[in-house]
Amino acid sequence: MAKFMDVHHGMSGITAEQLKEAHAADLRIEGEEGVSFEHAWADPDSGTVYCLSEAPSKEAVQRVHTRSGHPADEIHPVPLSV
Amino acid sequence: MAKFMDVHHGMSGITAEQLKEAHAADLRIEGEEGVSFEHAWADPDSGTVYCLSEAPSKEAVQRVHTRSGHPADEIHPVPLSV
Repeated sequence: MAKFMDVHHGMSGITAEQLKEAHAADLRIEGEEGVSFEHAWADPDSGTVYCLSEAPSKEAVQRVHTRSGHPADEIHPVPLSV
Repeated sequence: MAKFMDVHHGMSGITAEQLKEAHAADLRIEGEEGVSFEHAWADPDSGTVYCLSEAPSKEAVQRVHTRSGHPADEIHPVPLSV
């Protein structure tokens, strides 16, 4: 397992409720891919969403997001953290 | 106070020790700007570093990072989080 930060662009105007629903959609199926989404942060003005997860691979993160209807634009492994 | 995610590019090859030192340098002066850096995550391969903070403004976040010698390339307010 490794830690990943993924980034979604083009989510301008996202509301707290929409972020909560998108995150809940990921949580409902993440177990099937061995992924654990920990947090998500959104900037409605620029339309950027960041998600932090623990996952077996970048591809597993993307499979969950794609199945939930919101594929990520970038997925970075973040092996270092403080 | 608001929450911010800032992003640094061009940090390829950053080590755990360098991330820890950079974060410690921010923590030493953050109080002077009313900023509280909570976490930082790094991807040494792509050279990307993400920092999560609580701060009075985007400018305050950048002042701390600039004074510490590592200005951010992007700073996004992230008023929404789950």
